[in-house]
Amino acid sequence: MPQKSNRSGRSKVTRLDSFIRRLEAQRACLDRAVRLVGDLPGPVLELGLGNGRTFDHLRSRLPTREIFVFDRQVNAHPGCIPDPAHLFLGEIHVTLDRARARLPAPAALVHSDLGTGDPAGNARLAAWLARELPPLLASGAVVVADQAFEDPRLEPLPQPPGVRDERYFLYRRLDHRAG
Amino acid sequence: MPQKSNRSGRSKVTRLDSFIRRLEAQRACLDRAVRLVGDLPGPVLELGLGNGRTFDHLRSRLPTREIFVFDRQVNAHPGCIPDPAHLFLGEIHVTLDRARARLPAPAALVHSDLGTGDPAGNARLAAWLARELPPLLASGAVVVADQAFEDPRLEPLPQPPGVRDERYFLYRRLDHRAG
Repeated sequence: MPQKSNRSGRSKVTRLDSFIRRLEAQRACLDRAVRLVGDLPGPVLELGLGNGRTFDHLRSRLPTREIFVFDRQVNAHPGCIPDPAHLFLGEIHVTLDRARARLPAPAALVHSDLGTGDPAGNARLAAWLARELPPLLASGAVVVADQAFEDPRLEPLPQPPGVRDERYFLYRRLDHRAG
Repeated sequence: MPQKSNRSGRSKVTRLDSFIRRLEAQRACLDRAVRLVGDLPGPVLELGLGNGRTFDHLRSRLPTREIFVFDRQVNAHPGCIPDPAHLFLGEIHVTLDRARARLPAPAALVHSDLGTGDPAGNARLAAWLARELPPLLASGAVVVADQAFEDPRLEPLPQPPGVRDERYFLYRRLDHRAG
């Protein structure tokens, strides 16, 4: 007996398709953010190290920037682990607060990819990050995120070509006087 | 101080780039295998369920075929877990042998994605699979694999356009009389 399965045929977007699209969107948004940031001074914050792939991408595209990485624990490829001075380990609610005192300057770029399979938890975390991140950012800083951040200090930016709305998000930190 | 990092700039292929290319190669090879198999009768073998993304892809592209899945344990997305009658759990050396007696017919398509971070282990496993898989396959069956399989009964097929050699592999089971 054939297994129960989707019978609509070839047009269905599979989980493999969705995953590839998400990674392509992520890369397109990171690359756009790198261009948008230009020479704006400041370090990079990577919220969520995971396996270290986007950390590797950012350090390759921004070789002269300091990158501070935040995660609960290190599960990354051995070649993609930041040195201890650039690693904040623990709950983001604690580590981001600790970073406030330790960052050498307001950040120029943030990539946040902390979402999990829990939509309600993701929404709470996104609301918290949207509130807590702006004070850590330079005016004009760019935020790339896997979740929507709603805050008057963060201006949504258009997606790069080929990236569908709601797949990945881009924001710019408005001038501090405006927020 | 900036972190130690690759300074060759934008041209470097990052781990994010490599991962996207691998997934695109995997999907292109699976889609080509689906076309090559056509109406050849027989079930599909998925060696390595992982998160279930390629299982989801195969069941979507081949909705009328039985798919038998092999893995050490189930770590897949809840929506991508085969029913127990189509799941062989345990070491592949044991489960593939068990499958010999239980498969309803020789397989028409095999996707093998069992490689790990251990190159020597991968090579041993690939050598074992190249020897053990052919008797389970119909003449003309297509094998898609993350490792190279060297066996006179398996004819290497060209990669789909855009897929670089050595990134993913395609084979066709030669006529049984030839092997």
